[in-house]
Amino acid sequence: MDYEHYFSKRIADLKAEGRYRVFADLERICGRFPVALNHRDGKTVEVVVWCSNDYLGMGQRPEVIAATHEALDRCGAGAGGTRNISGTNHYHVLLEEEMADFNAKESALLFTSGYVANQTVLSTLGATIPGCIIFSDELNHNSMIEGIRHGRSPKQIFRHNDAQDLERLLAAAPKDAPKLVAFESVYSMDGDIAPIAEICDVAEKYGAMTYLDEVHAVGMYGEQGSGVAERDGLRDRITIIQGTMAKAIGVVGGYIAASNACVDYARSFGPGFIFSSSMPPATAAACLASVQYLRKHPELRVKHQERAATCKRRLSERGIPVLPSVSHIIPVMVGNASLCKQASDLLLSDYNIYVQPINYPTVPVGTERLRITPTPLHDDSMMDHLIESFCAVWDRLGIAKAQEQKAAE
Amino acid sequence: MDYEHYFSKRIADLKAEGRYRVFADLERICGRFPVALNHRDGKTVEVVVWCSNDYLGMGQRPEVIAATHEALDRCGAGAGGTRNISGTNHYHVLLEEEMADFNAKESALLFTSGYVANQTVLSTLGATIPGCIIFSDELNHNSMIEGIRHGRSPKQIFRHNDAQDLERLLAAAPKDAPKLVAFESVYSMDGDIAPIAEICDVAEKYGAMTYLDEVHAVGMYGEQGSGVAERDGLRDRITIIQGTMAKAIGVVGGYIAASNACVDYARSFGPGFIFSSSMPPATAAACLASVQYLRKHPELRVKHQERAATCKRRLSERGIPVLPSVSHIIPVMVGNASLCKQASDLLLSDYNIYVQPINYPTVPVGTERLRITPTPLHDDSMMDHLIESFCAVWDRLGIAKAQEQKAAE
Ligand SMILES: Cc1ncc(COP(=O)(O)O)c(C=O)c1O
Ligand SMILES: Cc1ncc(COP(=O)(O)O)c(C=O)c1O
Repeated sequence: MDYEHYFSKRIADLKAEGRYRVFADLERICGRFPVALNHRDGKTVEVVVWCSNDYLGMGQRPEVIAATHEALDRCGAGAGGTRNISGTNHYHVLLEEEMADFNAKESALLFTSGYVANQTVLSTLGATIPGCIIFSDELNHNSMIEGIRHGRSPKQIFRHNDAQDLERLLAAAPKDAPKLVAFESVYSMDGDIAPIAEICDVAEKYGAMTYLDEVHAVGMYGEQGSGVAERDGLRDRITIIQGTMAKAIGVVGGYIAASNACVDYARSFGPGFIFSSSMPPATAAACLASVQYLRKHPELRVKHQERAATCKRRLSERGIPVLPSVSHIIPVMVGNASLCKQASDLLLSDYNIYVQPINYPTVPVGTERLRITPTPLHDDSMMDHLIESFCAVWDRLGIAKAQEQKAAE
Repeated sequence: MDYEHYFSKRIADLKAEGRYRVFADLERICGRFPVALNHRDGKTVEVVVWCSNDYLGMGQRPEVIAATHEALDRCGAGAGGTRNISGTNHYHVLLEEEMADFNAKESALLFTSGYVANQTVLSTLGATIPGCIIFSDELNHNSMIEGIRHGRSPKQIFRHNDAQDLERLLAAAPKDAPKLVAFESVYSMDGDIAPIAEICDVAEKYGAMTYLDEVHAVGMYGEQGSGVAERDGLRDRITIIQGTMAKAIGVVGGYIAASNACVDYARSFGPGFIFSSSMPPATAAACLASVQYLRKHPELRVKHQERAATCKRRLSERGIPVLPSVSHIIPVMVGNASLCKQASDLLLSDYNIYVQPINYPTVPVGTERLRITPTPLHDDSMMDHLIESFCAVWDRLGIAKAQEQKAAE
């Protein structure tokens, strides 16, 4: 077989379908977020980033930067090993204690990323609890899907955010089989939020564990910011809370928080934890400083919600087809991969606004969108410019406005 | 099911088998590597680390630390997104260019870790090249095994480092089926090195791609340090070179280097690449500085080999049972999990030497060992102390010396 030819052919197919991804080559500017430099054709242009997952701009907080500098001078660059073989640094220990306390759980465990946390923990539970059935929300993130598939335990998919459908499946499963319900709090592409209490009700009724991905909620919901389960007073009903430190916490890395025994189990049996070098001490120090800051600053979360709500309202008023999300995420529907990419390109080239097009496989075909994530650092004048630019691009490309999309349904 | 009880029971079993892992809680001291602080029972004690995978002490190189500080001040802490959604920073672009050039390949791709690189690329190739058969060395690392299993393509295991056995399997496979041979250069637990040329010979004869994990060789072998394939002049015969930046490069992260089409394929279809936040800009900057330094400093590699050879010889002379490895890794065989842990504990508590016991599942039961990794920064007096301490511990615990182990075989 001609492998080169095969690879090229598959790439050509992607291009033909308008699904080939070109990454914007950015240079973040510490202290000026959400402004960044965009490198293109040997030139750099200042742009306003409207699609960052550094939702609160924590990546540039002086407290976070200072803690990183300090730990770097103190401990050097890398950890030097896997957690078991010389790679546990005191900052990892401190961060795990902080994450346990932050999530109101007995214990916590760090991973190199949120992806690895989901992939490792779900596959390990599925593979090592004999007969365990995993119940998974149909819109769960790829990292959860891959973890569940890899564990090869029986699985059942329930309708998105539908506790009744989940109950139907749970009721039909063997009564004494071990069970795990896996879902997210904030779904990042639609911006909707799971009915956590109802899901816990049915999970408890049928003796299932619960696994909640708070990746797009951590830092942003709850009095101290650990997520929607905190906001809703439901953390004690969740068996395992999972999250990332790469989004609102502003750094990188993943975690779970759960009981001592459960965390020790994941620590002792999870290959993606055991067999991979640990995060650098300075990364752990950065996460620690960020979480400590976030816990003490609820006003950041208030401001964040205000910015998102204002932006959503203003776009809607101008007829831009915004999904009525109940979170900080603003999906603007385009519904066509190539049009979506054109809109993004035009916003970047003519308006210095960077909003990445979201196409398949991240979202289903036909639901292509621009996904806006306002932060507390997007000020009114940036928002004015965003609204005007969206309206202009919608006109120039003839993209359907909200009423037209409704009419066409 | 009582999940808590199940988790606790499995942990209790590990303890009963002497396989429960307790992580040393270290504090690396930048500028004094391999010395570190060991936190224990509320006290800290200075120890000499003899099992770090920061093989060349690059984690504390002033050039690496300076580059990290600079990028941190310039770009802030995190990348802010996945590579496609606002998370590509100019440092990623520069580092990918450097890694391609370093490996003498057209292109390179970064991952959050070497684990994720193996897991993602092998599973993606296995799952998306119809009918692809993967031929895997029986001692391949867990990250490769998990990737291959997850891809669910047919697989064949060949005897460790045995090109003849590989040929037997290749010859028996359908002639026109796509094929991939996956192996490592330096095997990290035994310290032996693959017969890369012979493996390439048979792979080419049967039209198979080759995938080489250089995780324990990058930085340390070859004129510029890209690995054993460079040393042996074989890089153009390897389809995909994979490596980590968490070991001799001294930071964190993984990569592959290959043709443009192949890298673009992994970039476009690999879930563990697509759906995970990218490494922080400052991490990429640290890796870049480290690789640039390593390429220009072959004397580090010479010194490293000398230290490893000297340590190996001196331990052997005293009858300590060292595996005759041909690399920089020194496995000292104990052959019993609890004895191995006792030896490690005693070295730490009574001699301030930290060498982690390596037990199952990292190595097979009955081959438990202490794995020593001398670096260019372990000086003669540290080595004197190591040798004397090993001899003392061997005597105190009555562990078999080299001749006795031979006799018992
Ligand atoms: C819901 C969800 N879970 C997990 C992840 C993975 O987290 P990380 O970026 O830390 O790998 C992501 C996205 O990146 C996500 O959207
Ligand atoms: C052979 C081999 N490949 C891959 C990995 C994973 O690399 P990383 O530590 O960067 O995840 C390791 C160990 O950590 C390894 O020993």
